Amino acid sequence: MDETSITLRVELRADTLLGPGQAALLQGIRETGSIAAAGRRMGMSYKRAWYLIDTLNGSFGEPVVTAAKGGRAGGGAQLTACGEAVLDGYRRMEAAAAAAIEGEVAALRALLKPDDA
Amino acid sequence: MDETSITLRVELRADTLLGPGQAALLQGIRETGSIAAAGRRMGMSYKRAWYLIDTLNGSFGEPVVTAAKGGRAGGGAQLTACGEAVLDGYRRMEAAAAAAIEGEVAALRALLKPDDA
Repeated sequence: MDETSITLRVELRADTLLGPGQAALLQGIRETGSIAAAGRRMGMSYKRAWYLIDTLNGSFGEPVVTAAKGGRAGGGAQLTACGEAVLDGYRRMEAAAAAAIEGEVAALRALLKPDDA
Repeated sequence: MDETSITLRVELRADTLLGPGQAALLQGIRETGSIAAAGRRMGMSYKRAWYLIDTLNGSFGEPVVTAAKGGRAGGGAQLTACGEAVLDGYRRMEAAAAAAIEGEVAALRALLKPDDA
């Protein structure tokens, strides 16, 4: 394993956490155009996915996702400019954090028991 | 809130995660000299604390904690040099990751709804 695999959760404010779950959901909505489909591919109920998006929508000055009501096409959801900025910002934070700890991770990995021990 | 508050979990190997729980437990052992006391102040059962330490001890080439059997003094536990290196390395990773994302965090915080809105 060469890449540095991390989980990063950031407290933007006391009531506003941004972590891998929210990021994966936003990315799923970007890719599927649907809150339900984005949740489903994470094994998340529609209710839970909707709750996470509703919470984010209430935390930022602009909504992060806009959803159209159902109908023949089954509604649809998409990231707003704010949602794109949040998702892109999170991905940049993940990459920056992983890069910043590379040296420490290598040093700690050198202390691990050999895999075949 | 000015400081960047993050939760960082690092996958050192597929079977070896290092995160805030392990770090707090190691720090508690450093400060209390006891696995039980370290777990207790985190609201963690002795069984769970011991399991986490046993897992870490098995992951690294050297144990991270050595524990003496009970007796009048109630046993006692202390970090080894390896345990100190793991804890110190984790704290440095936390600080480096937080510093690396400061700019992105500020940009995302600027998108939040004002606190008094």
